[in-house]
Amino acid sequence: MQEWSEDGFIQYLSTQFPPGENVIGIGDDCAVVSAEGEASWLITTDALVEGIHFLKDQAPPHEVGYKTIAVNVSDIVAMGGRPKYAFLSIALPKTVDHSWMLRFIHGIKEACNKWNIYLLGGDTVGSLRDIFLNLTLIGSAKKSCIKYRHTAQPGDCIYVTNSLGDAGAGLKVLQNGIDGFESLINAHYHPEPNPEEGEWLASHEGVHAMMDISDGLNCDLKRLLKASHSGALVEISKLPISKELKRFCHDHHSDPLMLALSGGEDYCLLLTIDKEEGEKIREAFYKKFGKPLTQIGSIVAKPGLSYQKEGRPIDITVTDFSHF
Amino acid sequence: MQEWSEDGFIQYLSTQFPPGENVIGIGDDCAVVSAEGEASWLITTDALVEGIHFLKDQAPPHEVGYKTIAVNVSDIVAMGGRPKYAFLSIALPKTVDHSWMLRFIHGIKEACNKWNIYLLGGDTVGSLRDIFLNLTLIGSAKKSCIKYRHTAQPGDCIYVTNSLGDAGAGLKVLQNGIDGFESLINAHYHPEPNPEEGEWLASHEGVHAMMDISDGLNCDLKRLLKASHSGALVEISKLPISKELKRFCHDHHSDPLMLALSGGEDYCLLLTIDKEEGEKIREAFYKKFGKPLTQIGSIVAKPGLSYQKEGRPIDITVTDFSHF
Repeated sequence: MQEWSEDGFIQYLSTQFPPGENVIGIGDDCAVVSAEGEASWLITTDALVEGIHFLKDQAPPHEVGYKTIAVNVSDIVAMGGRPKYAFLSIALPKTVDHSWMLRFIHGIKEACNKWNIYLLGGDTVGSLRDIFLNLTLIGSAKKSCIKYRHTAQPGDCIYVTNSLGDAGAGLKVLQNGIDGFESLINAHYHPEPNPEEGEWLASHEGVHAMMDISDGLNCDLKRLLKASHSGALVEISKLPISKELKRFCHDHHSDPLMLALSGGEDYCLLLTIDKEEGEKIREAFYKKFGKPLTQIGSIVAKPGLSYQKEGRPIDITVTDFSHF
Repeated sequence: MQEWSEDGFIQYLSTQFPPGENVIGIGDDCAVVSAEGEASWLITTDALVEGIHFLKDQAPPHEVGYKTIAVNVSDIVAMGGRPKYAFLSIALPKTVDHSWMLRFIHGIKEACNKWNIYLLGGDTVGSLRDIFLNLTLIGSAKKSCIKYRHTAQPGDCIYVTNSLGDAGAGLKVLQNGIDGFESLINAHYHPEPNPEEGEWLASHEGVHAMMDISDGLNCDLKRLLKASHSGALVEISKLPISKELKRFCHDHHSDPLMLALSGGEDYCLLLTIDKEEGEKIREAFYKKFGKPLTQIGSIVAKPGLSYQKEGRPIDITVTDFSHF
């Protein structure tokens, strides 16, 4: 598959498979299907492939299991929903032993318990060589509170709910066998999407657009802008970068800005808020969750993503995140 | 994964992940979740792996696409439901070209059109070596009409809705490059689960238990018996075997009985009907659908599956179906 990007292929599918009535289909974090009364189902699916998303001999099976659930929870949270029902497919080669499987299932179970998810079904099949995992997660949300990525408006302020780049740096720490950056490793293995945060933000009319950051801010913000037919100006001095990431980058000659923009797997929220409401919602968010909502820029009418540093335009070349 | 059978693993998962209230979880063809009013959602997921479920250089991509949908439709039909929404994950190595993908998607589309299914989402990722496909299909059914595999009762007559073994023979025809058995090849590539048949059968109180035959009658009937805590006596002279299968077996020294019992991928229905209702339902089915419902045996209280030939007990050793 060399002639199509993932986004290009998804674009093609969305033209080939238009959704039915009362349904939102391909293109957002989840599909949305009308359910009982005021409720909608949110449905998302994610595949994880050995050698692409995880290295079997490096990643502990428990963490692979946990993350299989967590990355899908992140998609449900991104639209303001709560995860409910999971369906797991596992394709395993004969070389995978019983103990790997038990520890993998243990990680699945930890994550299901954490988010009150019921694993209701799945499929277990053989595989010739590599492990293949797929999770479909169904969540629910109040119809009127679901947020999309196509609804950002010029003038909106852009926010993120967590520091950026830690998970990307954590992967580097693991790949290079570096000691002493536990919080970065933890960010890589243990994304913590929070349904309460997503639901609370989605309940505010002032929040216009929302999605999760899975492939890095640069890549995902471009997706939001494309869906919203608008542009953005991002102030790089405002990007939330953790002390641990700064320390790692200082010690190991890495660029914190590049990790923040394209490290990938942040699994926090990216949202735009009406300019008039931003400060009020930011304060209320801090009061409720004890963590900052960080404003990093604003939506503009002219398409395209531009960066500035302390108010002056700068050119940045970002190589977008790709798994291994 | 050498220490667990698929059934053993599913058993383990069902103890680790009990379903919530108003929900039926792991173990049937689909999970069942309460929906609006009288309705329930039926949810199923199936993975197809290159080299296990299909051989990339032999199977036309269009047929792989069609079958990816069809095998999941069969699970929905098996419980009396109608398919509605599909979610497709595709993991592709770089060696798969654009044209394979377009033809695969064409097959997906043909099947979605055939069964009025909306493809609402999915995931497209890379893979190091093999193609992995996963489909999650959501269907709906009237709550009071859903049929399960645990509800067969001693005395019930056992029926199947189609001839058995054709798809298994079709695979042999393809693998050995034999000419002239188009209907068997078609049975292999084009399973035709029929939601009208499933829904009609499920609407009858006299139909006690129902499931689809995907891994061969011998294997799947054992699953039904285990779930229903009962046994069965099957009369092998009554197994519906097509003329084409007989001709293939005659010409190529194969045993039609073994193909009928364990050829696999029949994707027709296996059901049990109250003894008093069987004949009436059989006649009405023929009148409505123009095809026979074939009685092949009966449910008995004593656990275990026994075979007889023209009324006399016989011992048969069946090697159950496995993909390649």
